[in-house]
Amino acid sequence: MVVDGKHYRTIEASSDQSSVIIIDQTKLPFNFNLMRISSLNQMELAIKNMQVRGAPLIGISAAFGIALACNEDASDTSIESAKRALIATRPTAINLGWAVSKLCNTLLAIPENLRRKKAWDVSQSMADEDVEVNKRIGSAGITLLEQIDKPTINILTHCNAGWLATIDYGTALSPIYLAKAKGLDIHVWVDETRPRNQGMSLTAWELEKEGIPHTVISDNAGGYLMQQGKVDCVLVGADRVGVDGSVCNKIGTYLKALPAKVHNIPFYVAAPKSTFDKDFTFTSQPFQIENRDVSELFMITGLNADGNMSEVKIGESGGYNPAFDVTPPEYISKLICEDGVFDPSELRGLLL
Amino acid sequence: MVVDGKHYRTIEASSDQSSVIIIDQTKLPFNFNLMRISSLNQMELAIKNMQVRGAPLIGISAAFGIALACNEDASDTSIESAKRALIATRPTAINLGWAVSKLCNTLLAIPENLRRKKAWDVSQSMADEDVEVNKRIGSAGITLLEQIDKPTINILTHCNAGWLATIDYGTALSPIYLAKAKGLDIHVWVDETRPRNQGMSLTAWELEKEGIPHTVISDNAGGYLMQQGKVDCVLVGADRVGVDGSVCNKIGTYLKALPAKVHNIPFYVAAPKSTFDKDFTFTSQPFQIENRDVSELFMITGLNADGNMSEVKIGESGGYNPAFDVTPPEYISKLICEDGVFDPSELRGLLL
Repeated sequence: MVVDGKHYRTIEASSDQSSVIIIDQTKLPFNFNLMRISSLNQMELAIKNMQVRGAPLIGISAAFGIALACNEDASDTSIESAKRALIATRPTAINLGWAVSKLCNTLLAIPENLRRKKAWDVSQSMADEDVEVNKRIGSAGITLLEQIDKPTINILTHCNAGWLATIDYGTALSPIYLAKAKGLDIHVWVDETRPRNQGMSLTAWELEKEGIPHTVISDNAGGYLMQQGKVDCVLVGADRVGVDGSVCNKIGTYLKALPAKVHNIPFYVAAPKSTFDKDFTFTSQPFQIENRDVSELFMITGLNADGNMSEVKIGESGGYNPAFDVTPPEYISKLICEDGVFDPSELRGLLL
Repeated sequence: MVVDGKHYRTIEASSDQSSVIIIDQTKLPFNFNLMRISSLNQMELAIKNMQVRGAPLIGISAAFGIALACNEDASDTSIESAKRALIATRPTAINLGWAVSKLCNTLLAIPENLRRKKAWDVSQSMADEDVEVNKRIGSAGITLLEQIDKPTINILTHCNAGWLATIDYGTALSPIYLAKAKGLDIHVWVDETRPRNQGMSLTAWELEKEGIPHTVISDNAGGYLMQQGKVDCVLVGADRVGVDGSVCNKIGTYLKALPAKVHNIPFYVAAPKSTFDKDFTFTSQPFQIENRDVSELFMITGLNADGNMSEVKIGESGGYNPAFDVTPPEYISKLICEDGVFDPSELRGLLL
């Protein structure tokens, strides 16, 4: 997408396949900083510290992490070790394991001297494929927005499932960008999405740059807005979609699905098929919900009066910081993926 | 309650009836600052800026505001003007109008030369009555906690309905303080309560000072905790209770009532009868839900690295900041007031 007149992707490989450039997302919305990542270790840290984040983007970033590892050592041992290290950075999003495993299987099947180039080429293909997938999610999702017969379509979104969460276009925001391009009158309610405020700092920033009308709200406000008839649909991304149609996404997603159901507001989830998990159902919940450091609750970074980034402490008691929740399928109106729009009950058919 | 070994109320009149001392609640949890209020104008600002906040406390504070006005001029015009100014400071809580109107009616019925002393005496009686009412709310509410048959009782609360929101003891936290005194094994999940973080900065601070085990969570986390069976009841205060049993409280309360119902977790509301409004029902909603400045969303104050209080900007797009929502009666398990424990359907009988 476009930042101040120039087109960017969230991650771009150098032409000599020695490094990648990322956008340091922890510095947004106040500073748009590009950052060069030249080693596996730097990539691990960038994922762990959420300089790159969003299920699709961390998958591709991890693939490039394997490519960076191959630059130094393309042996079986090196690849296996890089795979383990990258998968350990963020346990909840399935894309990470999916992308890394897919790439490593390919590499381990070919001679060591061919692996380096292959790793970069496959990672780049995955990135290009993500862009295509997200465009198709946009085309599928806009059919749902076009069904809403309102002068202005009010869409509520949680966290950031925009182009910053992917390579380009985004998942949940892809239909919104397409709607804007097609001239639909839309307005987005942006949940700030505590504790890391990805809505306030990333989604609002993206929408601003693309000229899409939007309003930031506290995570507490969505139920009231729905009571007041001010939300026409909810549209979010997913970190993992179960075979039963249940959706693991940023903590608090479930708390928007409940009022949407009560107030008969469609609740849409947009996610590529790479997030689908045939081993996961709501009742099984076998994967790990990531508990992140409580400092995310108590420390917050912003611009101080001097215009510099500054961290302040806003609380100090003990805290608990689960990063995701799971919304059961009965609250999901439709799932949007690159193959079209589906009922949650159709997932099993798609996956098996 | 006790702060570092000394007993405090949230507002205390000077013995010469010339001023009151408040706790500046905008400085907590990092600084416990007392502040002298000597004029009507100072009291208006203290209420508007939320240096005093919480429905019961702003009612009593406003009464003392009338008393401060009478120190300068106890004429009908002065009292009427002070009443209007104080009621305009915060539109949602009913206690403010209730306390001010009750006091002004008393004053306007007596000769001007008796009004000053009367204003201080009545305000002090209201403060003392609030303390007694809250003790009785504690005694009524603990019967509900004692019914929970768990090794540790996990209570989730939203915003601050503790002693800082009242003169002493609190409303929702009063049964919790009594439970602690009686030796019940309790643990409190504290919603941080964006945008003003009263949970993180006030409730957690109160509980810490009284030695009650607690954990701060983002407002997004409560649904997940309820799914996991980690919440045994929800206990919140109210700014206004309708004759139909509906409850107006801090924004986001509704988003905890919904999952409580889904997961069969009792949802309790503790509030004095002064918050009951015979003219309000969920469908009528005639009173104004206060929309506060969006700077509350985008600016946040905390301790910087130098240990000084510092404000930082965390976002900059347009925002919307409604401060309260209304939870319909079907989500309220029990209402706790100074007269006991009631079903929402019994409110009409209590009020008419």
